[in-house]
Formats: sequence, structure tokens, C-alpha cells
Amino acid sequence: MTASSGPALPVPDGLVEAFRAYERAVAERDTAALARFVAPGSSTLAGDPRGLLVGSDAITAYAAAPGPRRLVQTHVQVTDPDHALVVALTEHESGGRGQQTQLWARTDAGWVVTAAHTSEPAPALDTRVWRVVGDPLVPGTPGGPLSGESVAVKDVYAVAGHPVGGGNPAWEAAAPIERGDAKAVLGLVEAGADLRGIARTDEMAWSLFGTNPHYGAPPNPRAPYRVPGGSSSGPASAVSLGHATIGLGTDTGGSVRVPAAYQGLYGVRTTHGAIGTHGVLALAPSFDTVGWLTRDADLLALVGDVLLPDSTARGSSELVLVPELLDLAEPDVREAVEAWVATQGLVVRESWSLGELAEWRRAFITQQSWEAWQVRGGWLRDRIDVLGAEGRARFEHASSIDERTAERAQGVVHAARARLRELVGDRVLVAPTTPSVAPLLGSDLAALREPTLALTCLAPLAGLPAVSLPLRTAAGLPCGVSLTAAPGRDRDLLALAASLA
Amino acid sequence: MTASSGPALPVPDGLVEAFRAYERAVAERDTAALARFVAPGSSTLAGDPRGLLVGSDAITAYAAAPGPRRLVQTHVQVTDPDHALVVALTEHESGGRGQQTQLWARTDAGWVVTAAHTSEPAPALDTRVWRVVGDPLVPGTPGGPLSGESVAVKDVYAVAGHPVGGGNPAWEAAAPIERGDAKAVLGLVEAGADLRGIARTDEMAWSLFGTNPHYGAPPNPRAPYRVPGGSSSGPASAVSLGHATIGLGTDTGGSVRVPAAYQGLYGVRTTHGAIGTHGVLALAPSFDTVGWLTRDADLLALVGDVLLPDSTARGSSELVLVPELLDLAEPDVREAVEAWVATQGLVVRESWSLGELAEWRRAFITQQSWEAWQVRGGWLRDRIDVLGAEGRARFEHASSIDERTAERAQGVVHAARARLRELVGDRVLVAPTTPSVAPLLGSDLAALREPTLALTCLAPLAGLPAVSLPLRTAAGLPCGVSLTAAPGRDRDLLALAASLA
Repeated sequence: MTASSGPALPVPDGLVEAFRAYERAVAERDTAALARFVAPGSSTLAGDPRGLLVGSDAITAYAAAPGPRRLVQTHVQVTDPDHALVVALTEHESGGRGQQTQLWARTDAGWVVTAAHTSEPAPALDTRVWRVVGDPLVPGTPGGPLSGESVAVKDVYAVAGHPVGGGNPAWEAAAPIERGDAKAVLGLVEAGADLRGIARTDEMAWSLFGTNPHYGAPPNPRAPYRVPGGSSSGPASAVSLGHATIGLGTDTGGSVRVPAAYQGLYGVRTTHGAIGTHGVLALAPSFDTVGWLTRDADLLALVGDVLLPDSTARGSSELVLVPELLDLAEPDVREAVEAWVATQGLVVRESWSLGELAEWRRAFITQQSWEAWQVRGGWLRDRIDVLGAEGRARFEHASSIDERTAERAQGVVHAARARLRELVGDRVLVAPTTPSVAPLLGSDLAALREPTLALTCLAPLAGLPAVSLPLRTAAGLPCGVSLTAAPGRDRDLLALAASLA
Repeated sequence: MTASSGPALPVPDGLVEAFRAYERAVAERDTAALARFVAPGSSTLAGDPRGLLVGSDAITAYAAAPGPRRLVQTHVQVTDPDHALVVALTEHESGGRGQQTQLWARTDAGWVVTAAHTSEPAPALDTRVWRVVGDPLVPGTPGGPLSGESVAVKDVYAVAGHPVGGGNPAWEAAAPIERGDAKAVLGLVEAGADLRGIARTDEMAWSLFGTNPHYGAPPNPRAPYRVPGGSSSGPASAVSLGHATIGLGTDTGGSVRVPAAYQGLYGVRTTHGAIGTHGVLALAPSFDTVGWLTRDADLLALVGDVLLPDSTARGSSELVLVPELLDLAEPDVREAVEAWVATQGLVVRESWSLGELAEWRRAFITQQSWEAWQVRGGWLRDRIDVLGAEGRARFEHASSIDERTAERAQGVVHAARARLRELVGDRVLVAPTTPSVAPLLGSDLAALREPTLALTCLAPLAGLPAVSLPLRTAAGLPCGVSLTAAPGRDRDLLALAASLA
């Protein structure tokens, strides 16, 4: 059944039997049998809503078998006696229809699939990304500067009429219905942006990777099969997916900048204290800040115009690159940052002799953990098992920190703040946002936490604003370069980012 | 690049140029140019999230060009010098990624596509189906008989914390935030069902086809490119798509039964007055009833156990088929109903000499319209242009009905009620739910309104409960058979439907 005007070719011997055996393996969820139908080699393709896998190794490792379904129609197009396209319309047990397109090839080992493309019915909402979503959930005030924009609000902000979920079902179940909006939420709505919905966060906003144990990891469309970055994971993925244009997040130790880098977005962490956090679920008040993510640098700055206080803090646009910080990144990210730096005019390379970096990072973690237990320990003390394993381990460690240890850490934090502010001065620090691209789902995330914090803790330690700009590695994966400047230079930094984008 | 162990075949001459020309046509939204790449013939395939189109005529008529996007990766698998599969990973201007798989064939007229499969990024929510959706929007009370079920509530029911939208943006914008749930909503939540969200309705719940002019027609997954049926269009599509297991709707003149028939679902209209409609946006109070849709007859009955009053009304299970009513259906639907009847045991065929049918239908429309203006005219009088064309025409006609005409119509309705109740007696009337399968989008829906009402107005005229069971025509399209019985026999009828399913 090709498009040629000649007669359709007969269905080749064995194809129907092979297709039936494949469908049997799907029905029986027999992954070993399914793997035998994957054509070996680096050019085999398998695409589904999660992404396109290239090569039989990747397919065997990551491809998921389709859920229970029946075939409504099957069409065969034979191109030659050894190849045929089989297209099946599927009806799923859980409702909805999908489509499966496969190119089959005859090999010495029998019929195999060289390319597959599977569509499945979309869910009502992607519960990895969203808790609630509407058309819109809350309409923006007409006529404002953000008219036409839509916001994904991280589930740590108060939204009138809804509880704050905080990324944990038990917290959400116990949370009161909010009577008003958090200041940043209200600011966006009054500026004309529609609230699209309330998006997922890592548990209690305390993680950098976005792998919430209760709701799953939101997808990272530009780096499929990799983590989205957290803890503002839902707002970041919502923006990447085109579900919203603005992701409203929070950044305590990197929770906006990490997902920005991992997903190829623009992201800003504001000067500590510049935007009030009343109505925001606290994690570590000394470091908690409002931040946001966009696909566009101009919109990133426009949101700043709306939310930030008028600021007189100005400084130079001189970019300072610190080799010790650059060297914290893996080679692919380092090269991407170096390549970006090479396109800029004036960049000063300056060694900061940062022997204290490891001590700073440890002090940051100690003070963050201490504060997290101060704000959340009262509720968690009798129910810490409501948390996932990662959150539980972190809060258990936090509960074990004694006051003297916390005080010592605070001393280091204060010293680091003074020193970093002095080093940055009125210039703009350039550094990799994260040391790596988004790690693969299922990889050793714990091992990546400290190297990532080593870079992302500097702005929080010093209370500085930081903007992450999207870059790509040679392999095409997203990463980020960060610009950090003196406190209050948020608008300055956003304008610089827009001019460099 | 096939799976054979031999060397990959070279990319055939002209294929790259053809593919580039195709992509140019996509970028320029040049539908005429795109049509030239569709292989002529009845076996050409084009599948996208809306459904699978078979044959070049259907593709040319219905397929939509993809939106603005860029190609991230392109893979070619050549099966022979005249055929190649081209797989492209797409990144969309509005966010997210998709995939396009095409089988290209060389013909005398150049390279054409014999099969295409396109995936596009899913939106945050399908705004044709939903207004608001959550995980869940409201959790059900634990431990009830409907635990594990999820409800799509038609946007005419009060849901605490939300306005009632009524399928019209101006109405929604002016509507107050509801302080409590409508009785049926509360009943489902207290029985353990989660509220999944608030689903679309036709404007003011007054249509049978589900083509809302403001939000678009929800998809009909089992009859793609056809209307979903209305006015409970959103709840019906939500159930078909697997977004919810229960669609809570209302049925005034067929608004649950029509989408049930069009989408292959079970649906019930309850005895008039059996379930209170406090908190439900009224259309015509003499006929308005609570109803619901499911994919499963047992669940249809279980919802009845929760919502219906305990009832002693029982009757016989004798099925009565009335040829005059059967003859109101088109041949494909009539045959499906006849085939179903043939599988039943005792079915009495009985002529009812229904010369008054047309008069009844007219009286129903007049009284419904009169009441609709009584309840909605006050608000609409000064702003009727907020309605779409169909709604405006209907309400304008309603506003022109004088009291004497309305009184005459009411007299006919009363007579019809008495006569129908007498004819049905304690038996079960069997009839086609609708005279046709779901009409194609864009077809002449107005012409289908009266023939459809001729069948669907009988239960409302007499205030009787009616259940629609899903059937299929010979062509595989959904249609329905209705069982109608004496007032109060709802539970009886639901049990009968479950036993027949």
C-alpha cells in the first residue's frame, strides 16, 4: 500500500505474526520480549511523550511499555519485501485514544522495529508539574504591563482560596485555605498576568533536583530523561513546556537558578529582602528569596519592573571571571561558559584565592538546616515519616544541629558575606550556574549536591542578586552562566541580562 | 540506516529537497503546498492529537498544519531507493517538544508522504474540556463507596471557592464565588469521589451539540472530527478521555443523553425533581434534572445509589419497542438498535399512533424557551451580544414568546405528560437515544436539532428517568439506545442497564 500507482505489495511473510507477538508482549508487560523487537544499532529510534530515544541501548534502558490498550485499527504500508510501516490506532483502558507507528525490518534474527513513535492520551493535567491549573485559575487585572502573560506559582506561595501544599501531601491536607495572595502573587496579578495554576515544588522547597517523591519529577523537555532541577521544579517545567510564560519560584540555595540552568531558561534570584516573603512557606529565612523563570530575557526584566522596589543601586557592567569558580564546573559546562565569555567584550580574569570555599559551603548548609528545623521542626517532630527519604534524612540531620554549631556557622556566613561583597564590588561576577548539566533520572544525585551548592551558595551567602542565562554544551544540553552583583542591583542585572541575551 | 547488518543505504536523490520544501510550507502555513505532499489514495495516513485520518481526501479536508516550530534533530531511515522514513524532533515556539514521523515515497509526481504521525506538546489543560482542574481540585471524604473515583463537574454546578461559569465568559466574570457546593457535588464528595475539576458546558446549558463558541468543542475521542454532544460536553469528553470516571451533568432536553450516545458512554437523566437542583444554574426548571455519565454501567448505578432518594418505585423489565420512534432514527442507528434488541429476550413491539409527536416537540421547545427567558432574560436583556450566534438567536426567540403562547404550550406539555406516562406504564420504553451518530464538526447542526429533540424531549415532557446505553453502528461509530420508565424508577432502570451491559 504505497503511494505509487502500481498495485499494493503483499504483506511480507512473518510480519503479522511478529506484530501479534509484539502486542502480546505489550499486553503481558513482558519487557524482555519487547526488547527483542528493538533493532540493534545506534540508529534505532523510539519516541513517546517523554522524548525521542536514539539507539537500541538507550531504548532498552529507558523506553517504557505502553499501558493497557486495545487496537481499534491497524494499517500496513509495505515499502519492499523486507520493510513495512505498521500504524495502529489504540484505545486505552483508562480512556482516550493514541497512535503507534512502527517501521518494521526483516533481519536474519527475524522482524524487528527500527523506528517507533507512540502517542498516548494526555492526562487532564500533568500532576508532576501541577497541583491545580485553570483557564485561568485567577484572571489578571486588565490593562497591566503583564497582560497576556501567565504564571505558574510554586506551591509555597499563598493563593487565595487554596491551601499551600509545600510539595508534601500531609502538609497540604493540614494546611488552611489561604484568604489572600502572597505579595509577589498579587503583584503579578495586579500587573495583568493570569495565574495559570499552582505548580509543584520539591518537599518543603528543600532540594536542587526536582525529584519529588510524592508526585514524581516534572519533565525536562530540553533534556529528556534528566531531572528538571528544583526546588522550583514545577514552575520551571511549566515554562519550558509552554504552559505558562512566567514561573514564580523561590531561591534559598539555588532553587530558581538550578532549574533555569538545567532547562535552558532565564532565572533570577533577587537581593535578599528586596521582595517580601510574607505568605511564602519559609525554608531558611536568612537565605529565602523570591525569584522567577522565563523563556525570554526581556520578560524576566519586565517581571522585575513589576515586583522589585525602585532601586538606585547601579554599578559597572564589568564582567569578572574567577578561574577557581570556573574550575568547579565539569568540562562540558566550563567550555560552554568559556565560549560565551569569549563573545563578550571586556571580561576581567581574576583569581580570588578562595581557600574558604568548602568551609563557606558547609556553613551555608549548617545555617540553612538549622533554620529549616526552627521553622518546620515543630510540625515535623511527631510526623517526620510523612517526608520522602531525602527530605527525612535532611530534616533529621537538621534536628541534630546544636546551638553552638549553628552559631559558629553563622559566624562563617557573616565573614563570607563581607568578603564576597568586597570581592564582587560594583562589578558583575560571571560563573557557571551549576557545575553540570541536568543529571539523568536515577543517577547518584546525592553526589552532585555539594559540588552544585559550592557554586549556588555564593549569592545566598552574600544576599546578592543573581541571574542565570541559558547556554548549551557541545552535546546540545542546557546549562547556565550566572551573573551576580551587589545587593540592590537586581534591575541593573536584569537589564544587563536582557542586553546580553 | 536500516536494522539490517549491511551498510546503510544512501539518502535517495531529491528526498532532502522535498523534506525542506515541506518544512518551508509548514513555516509559511502554505496549506496548498502542504496538500501537494499528501500521497493521493485511500491508504494514506495522517495522525495527530485529534485523531487518525485515513485517505488523502480526509487528510486534505481536515488535517491542520503544525504550529511554529524548529527541528532539533532529523533522522532518516532509508528502506529502499524509493522509500524512507524521516523522523524529526521538534521544538515549539510556544514551548515544549514534539515529534514528526513521516514515510516518504518517490512517485512520478515527486516525493510524497504516505503516512505521517505528529505529536505536539500537550497544553497545561485542554481548555475545550476544562475550566479548572486539580490533583484533585477537592479531595473526596475517605472511605466512601465512591473512593478512587473522580468527577468532572459541569460548569453549571456550584463548587465552593469558584464562580459558576455557565459556558459564557461574561457570565463567569460577573458570577460570585460560591460559598458552598451544590447538593449533587457535595453528595459525590461525601461519598468519597475526588473532584477532578470544573468542565465546560454549552452556553447556559442550552444546546445539544457541544460546540461552545467561546472555548471550542471538546474532543470526541471515539468519533474524531465529530461533535462531542452537549450541553454536558465537558464532563462527557472528560470521561471519554479518561480524565475523570464520572461526568456530573444536567439534562433538560437531552444534555446528558446526547453526549452519552455520541461518545459511547453510559448516561442517565433522573426523574424530574428526584435530585434537588439548588446550586445549579437553571435553564428551564420544569425540565431541568441532574444526570451523569460514565464509561461503565456499574459505576452509573453506584452513583445513583449515592445521589438518588431511596425509592420504592418498581416495575416490570418488559421492554417495549415503538416502531414510530425507531423510524425517527437514521438507518445506521436504527440497525444498531435493532441488532441490540435482537439480543434481548422479551421485547414487545407496539405501535403508539403518535400523531402528536411534532406538536409535543414544538410545545417542549416553546415552554423550555419561555422558562429560559424567565430565568435568564433579566441578565441578558441589556447584554445579549455576550452570547455566541446560536445562543443569541435562541434567547432572542425566547424573548419574543408571549404569555398566551406559553400557556398553550404548557397545556400540550401536560397532555403529553399524562399520555406518555400512561403509554409507558410500568414497562421500559426502548428507543434510539439520538437519531444519528455525532455529526461532523462544521456540518449543518441546526438541521439536526429538531429530529434529535423529537426523540430526546419525550422523557423531559413526561418527567421520566432515562438511561442511554452505548452501541456502535456498522461503521464503528458510537450511538445509543435509551431505556425510559415511570417516574421514580431510576434505581430500577440503572440496575436493569447494569444487567444488560
